[in-house]
Amino acid sequence: MKCVSCKDEYGAADAGTCRECYEEASETEEELKREIEELKSKVNFLRFWSPVDSRSHHYHRSTTPCFTDVLLVAFDEDSGKPVANSVPVPANKAVLTSRSPVFRAMLETEMEESLSGTIKISDVSYDALRAFVNYLYTAEACLDDEMACDLLVLADKYEVKHLKIYCEKFLISKLNWESSLLSYSFAHQHNANNLLDASLSIILDNMEKVSKREEYMELVEKDPRIVVEIYEAYLSKQVNTAAAADSHDDKVVKRR
Amino acid sequence: MKCVSCKDEYGAADAGTCRECYEEASETEEELKREIEELKSKVNFLRFWSPVDSRSHHYHRSTTPCFTDVLLVAFDEDSGKPVANSVPVPANKAVLTSRSPVFRAMLETEMEESLSGTIKISDVSYDALRAFVNYLYTAEACLDDEMACDLLVLADKYEVKHLKIYCEKFLISKLNWESSLLSYSFAHQHNANNLLDASLSIILDNMEKVSKREEYMELVEKDPRIVVEIYEAYLSKQVNTAAAADSHDDKVVKRR
Repeated sequence: MKCVSCKDEYGAADAGTCRECYEEASETEEELKREIEELKSKVNFLRFWSPVDSRSHHYHRSTTPCFTDVLLVAFDEDSGKPVANSVPVPANKAVLTSRSPVFRAMLETEMEESLSGTIKISDVSYDALRAFVNYLYTAEACLDDEMACDLLVLADKYEVKHLKIYCEKFLISKLNWESSLLSYSFAHQHNANNLLDASLSIILDNMEKVSKREEYMELVEKDPRIVVEIYEAYLSKQVNTAAAADSHDDKVVKRR
Repeated sequence: MKCVSCKDEYGAADAGTCRECYEEASETEEELKREIEELKSKVNFLRFWSPVDSRSHHYHRSTTPCFTDVLLVAFDEDSGKPVANSVPVPANKAVLTSRSPVFRAMLETEMEESLSGTIKISDVSYDALRAFVNYLYTAEACLDDEMACDLLVLADKYEVKHLKIYCEKFLISKLNWESSLLSYSFAHQHNANNLLDASLSIILDNMEKVSKREEYMELVEKDPRIVVEIYEAYLSKQVNTAAAADSHDDKVVKRR
């Protein structure tokens, strides 16, 4: 027979679908693609002009004003001053409160930020703050390892779930056994559960190698409870594997 | 052979794909579905709280304030007053200007609307105005025939392309030969090209019946140029069909 898709001849052993199912599947694919196009156009419609132009280093309002009504300042807690070479990033209260329950609580009550119209964002680089505001407007960010970590920290702090998941996905795609312990500890610190699970799974598969690394020693010193958690997961995995093997052996014995 | 999808037996004549192509197609489908999920979550993230609660008749701000900075008023040009039983609909300049180039021009210059903080929307029902504002915030609207027409008019006036396409799709799905002439005339009036093409195509397929309807007589009276356009399209279709038939006849003759 001839495959209607790749046009190759194939025998009964390599048979896939009948023609009817093939046609149905093709229709489904077309429908899914149409749905994707519609959703993409919806995203474009809902996306905001960002008051931060992500292409230039210094923010400038887009050629037209954005009716911004609040300023975000990258703030250095140690010096008690704005981060060097930074300027306040303008934003809309309506956007901030719509994206983040933390900003909502801040701006909808008579808190300092609401009264002054300025929100200090602590311990963040100017670039990360700009990228953060840009994401709140557009749901887009250009990530590298550092930016993904910086934005994840902000997403956790300001409870922007969508951004957190976005950063976690990026970091998970970059995971390897060498980085897994640092990632686990970082995920722990910032409540990033997807990253936590993914890095734990890699750690457990490479337990011996991981336990010989410098970061491991440091973590034992700094936060031994996290290391205990890892060992508990390791033990639990061992027990489960053993139980599964036993149950398999039992079945083999019974069959005999 | 057995179809891997529906499990039915089939013969060579009904063969669809080989197994490899089937597996590839399944993977593609999974990927498309994942993409759809991601886009849906992006839409949810970008969607705004609407200052209009679409479920209650009278607007009220959501339980928490929206930092709105402009009011939209459904305005009756004849009486020179707001539409009866309507209240001003609050909105954000940032949202309006981001969604509509007309609002942008209005609000970013020192026009009356920008100075007064109130925008009069003429000849619109209160419900349609509320639905319009809600769409600008959420990209969602609950349509029936009347609402789709009302929103299309607003979408055309304020150049909200995404909403126009949305309404056109709805109206096209409801088209039939009896309504086709009114739809064509409506589409003409409000620059709705998709609806225009779709209704013209139905008119041309039912020219004789359509030309006997009351709306046809009325349109000849009211706007004969539109009727001429329809006849021109009809003529052009006739000519093309004849040419295609001739060319087919020629081929048949030559073959003989």
